[in-house]
Amino acid sequence: MSKILTNRKDDYAQWYNDIVLKAGLADYSAVKGCMVIKPHGYALWENMRDQLDKRFKETGHQNAYFPLFIPKSFLSKEAAHVEGFAKECAVVTHYRLKNDPNGGGVIVDPDAKLEEELIVRPTSETIIWNTYKDWIQSYRDLPLLINQWANVVRWEMRTRLFLRTTEFLWQEGHTAHATKEEAIEETKKMLEVYATFAEEYMAMPVVRGVKTANERFAGAEDTYCIEALMQDGKALQAGTSHFLGQNFAKAFEVMFQDKNNNREYVWATSWGVSTRLVGALVMAHSDDDGLVLPPKLAPLQVVIVPIFNKDPNTQEKINNLANDLIATLKQNNIRVKFDNDDNTRPGFKFAEYELKGVPVRITLGARDIENNIAEVARRDTKEKESIALDNLAGHVIKLLADIQTNMYQRALQFRTDNTTKIDNWDAFVKALDEKPGFISAHWDGTSETEEKIKELTKATIRCIPLNNEQEEGQCVLTGKPSKERVLFARAY
Amino acid sequence: MSKILTNRKDDYAQWYNDIVLKAGLADYSAVKGCMVIKPHGYALWENMRDQLDKRFKETGHQNAYFPLFIPKSFLSKEAAHVEGFAKECAVVTHYRLKNDPNGGGVIVDPDAKLEEELIVRPTSETIIWNTYKDWIQSYRDLPLLINQWANVVRWEMRTRLFLRTTEFLWQEGHTAHATKEEAIEETKKMLEVYATFAEEYMAMPVVRGVKTANERFAGAEDTYCIEALMQDGKALQAGTSHFLGQNFAKAFEVMFQDKNNNREYVWATSWGVSTRLVGALVMAHSDDDGLVLPPKLAPLQVVIVPIFNKDPNTQEKINNLANDLIATLKQNNIRVKFDNDDNTRPGFKFAEYELKGVPVRITLGARDIENNIAEVARRDTKEKESIALDNLAGHVIKLLADIQTNMYQRALQFRTDNTTKIDNWDAFVKALDEKPGFISAHWDGTSETEEKIKELTKATIRCIPLNNEQEEGQCVLTGKPSKERVLFARAY
Repeated sequence: MSKILTNRKDDYAQWYNDIVLKAGLADYSAVKGCMVIKPHGYALWENMRDQLDKRFKETGHQNAYFPLFIPKSFLSKEAAHVEGFAKECAVVTHYRLKNDPNGGGVIVDPDAKLEEELIVRPTSETIIWNTYKDWIQSYRDLPLLINQWANVVRWEMRTRLFLRTTEFLWQEGHTAHATKEEAIEETKKMLEVYATFAEEYMAMPVVRGVKTANERFAGAEDTYCIEALMQDGKALQAGTSHFLGQNFAKAFEVMFQDKNNNREYVWATSWGVSTRLVGALVMAHSDDDGLVLPPKLAPLQVVIVPIFNKDPNTQEKINNLANDLIATLKQNNIRVKFDNDDNTRPGFKFAEYELKGVPVRITLGARDIENNIAEVARRDTKEKESIALDNLAGHVIKLLADIQTNMYQRALQFRTDNTTKIDNWDAFVKALDEKPGFISAHWDGTSETEEKIKELTKATIRCIPLNNEQEEGQCVLTGKPSKERVLFARAY
Repeated sequence: MSKILTNRKDDYAQWYNDIVLKAGLADYSAVKGCMVIKPHGYALWENMRDQLDKRFKETGHQNAYFPLFIPKSFLSKEAAHVEGFAKECAVVTHYRLKNDPNGGGVIVDPDAKLEEELIVRPTSETIIWNTYKDWIQSYRDLPLLINQWANVVRWEMRTRLFLRTTEFLWQEGHTAHATKEEAIEETKKMLEVYATFAEEYMAMPVVRGVKTANERFAGAEDTYCIEALMQDGKALQAGTSHFLGQNFAKAFEVMFQDKNNNREYVWATSWGVSTRLVGALVMAHSDDDGLVLPPKLAPLQVVIVPIFNKDPNTQEKINNLANDLIATLKQNNIRVKFDNDDNTRPGFKFAEYELKGVPVRITLGARDIENNIAEVARRDTKEKESIALDNLAGHVIKLLADIQTNMYQRALQFRTDNTTKIDNWDAFVKALDEKPGFISAHWDGTSETEEKIKELTKATIRCIPLNNEQEEGQCVLTGKPSKERVLFARAY
């Protein structure tokens, strides 16, 4: 069988595109920068969404839905916010088409021009805080804990499937609080929700940290983030949680009456993760043969492939075995499929399920079952074992848990191996090219130095880790005094 | 307590708006024609979505996601389709804002004009069939059974919360088949999925039928529909399923190689329901005190309200009773809440939960529990019963099922009472004003007559019922011969 994917070591970017397209995660679309999320990719996103949604609800949040469109004037109300988003806004200016009277086909009707242009939401702080103005009067209306699952549009010049697309799917939480302390607590709580989801479900270790002023969300007082390391040594921001202070409350005049009858501005947070996580999942774990998916998120966790001989008795025996096994696995909430399509050769099926990242493959071979065994292959290590038939279901259930743990440990080991403390500039520059990964280095705390480093190396400060060890040192570029190391990397 | 809602008999339209706003289903937004779906309304939609999604998957469909934007030229490729949607399209013409050099604030950057305008999808046939061109080559690629959950935009001049909004949420299935017969079978199968969902979950009886040519989806060969009757006697189209023939396959050149190596155009269907269903649910069942929700879809199915006295022992006893009851109900997958907020009087809580449509309310009163009873109130009939504590959980479980059945039967009885066979024009006109509902009448089968009737009475042909009885008769307007009755009504 010919090689389906480019190898990672030959061209990592091409490998990524190959795998996304060929494993059926996404496709390019006719609209520049927008992708089609194909069924396998969407099923992954659904599994992520359902798990996150459960956690949001467990932490007291409710879902709602706000308009796709934002009046242009709303965006302008928070100065940093419009500065951050103005350059990438899709703008609706008209609301009707008509037939060209000069025979030019269907054209935009010039008589149907909007009085005020509408922006396709790049994020919803402005339309939501304009609504919260009506919903919040008293401390009894607080906290207001709302989440929205939606599509958003940011007009990107350079796009990559899942990682950076003009339209993407995401969730955005928007909460309102009576006190600063409570809002900060919420910001950190939701960061932890993201971090535990990434680690426990995506099997992807993340650094919890806070962004520098340069890298903050447009309109935030503080941006917390989780940062993951991809297999090529580049970092990927996997989720952010923003403490917005009273910026949006002031911009939209959202005040509440406190218990002492004082009118105060409300404190805000917002937090989001997106379909970018699908890209992160691919880059964190997959290999040259295809996707490697953590069992907890894999749309299909176990596939059973029969290898029949000509004997109808054996065929019946295999079918019965498969059906019993499926019944047992389904009772244990395992997503399993019996692929007995006899128009496709087993070898082709093996390659296909490897490409799609199914964690466990069970082969029920005519010869094996005579000996009361089946072959069980795990996708993460590609190891195969012969397992006694009467122990098969139990083995598979345990194996799925093992794979989940192993994938996390392997990614953690990779991150440990590729996180380096560096204390001088030459080593810093050299490491970025020769051993990419997280660099833990001292920084003098100024935006100027941060920008200079980015300009010289394309590395950015990914975050200042939470609960960071305090340590005297000198900035890796300027030699000025520093009190803690920060994490640098080139990033997606 | 003052009346919260306008009475239905005084002003049905105002009652509807009151209930949507005050029960927390939706709110107006700052963007003309767009609504904010509030948590209670969104939770209802989520429950609908989850049930429908399950049925789509059970019938072999997979979810995917296609771009929000459609190049203008795509819309024009199917003549009837663009004719149907051109007048209500939101058009994106620019992709950037900038600061006005003349100090006029943030303006659309004239240098960021798109070469080809993008339409915010009013429906996705065109972008999807443009994609299917790449996905379908052979009969082995068929059938292709895809569904998408998405937002769509149709620029409506007159909008009403949930029933007709500029932006709405929906699902749209788009399937591709090798034969005409298979596509028609799919169209009918999905209509039946909608119909059973409406009847079994929404407790809303529907007529399954087919639209006349006038009322067909733009680009369809046949539009099947389910039609429901609201309490004011107006009909509401609750879902549609379209047999698209080869129209979109021809417009986008989607052909496949059949088993005999012939190249053929693909056959298509599309089908959808939207957040309009939330409006239908409200109008079908609710009353002058608020929402009446079918238990299977109610976000909260049972609420327990304590009435404490000053005795801490009694308080503890009530709390223990409530906790035990909740544990039992949750084991039975019942969504239940104990509202022991002591800042709110019980009477206020009763009104609030009535307004929100919680199907069952259990009152644990200090005096009642001394006698080992609790008061159980059902929302649909407002009947109250005293139930022995040791029988409470079992009673509630059975009651929820009874309410679901009763709501359906009541709505069915209403429809039966308000469906009238009419055979002459004067009675037809009179019935529409005096006893609105479905009118079953003969029609001569011409679009001219259909339009004339609409012009004269505002009544439209809702559908030609499936498996319609064949019966000789004369058209109610023209007296020309007719072979079957069709269903007329004024409609939402």
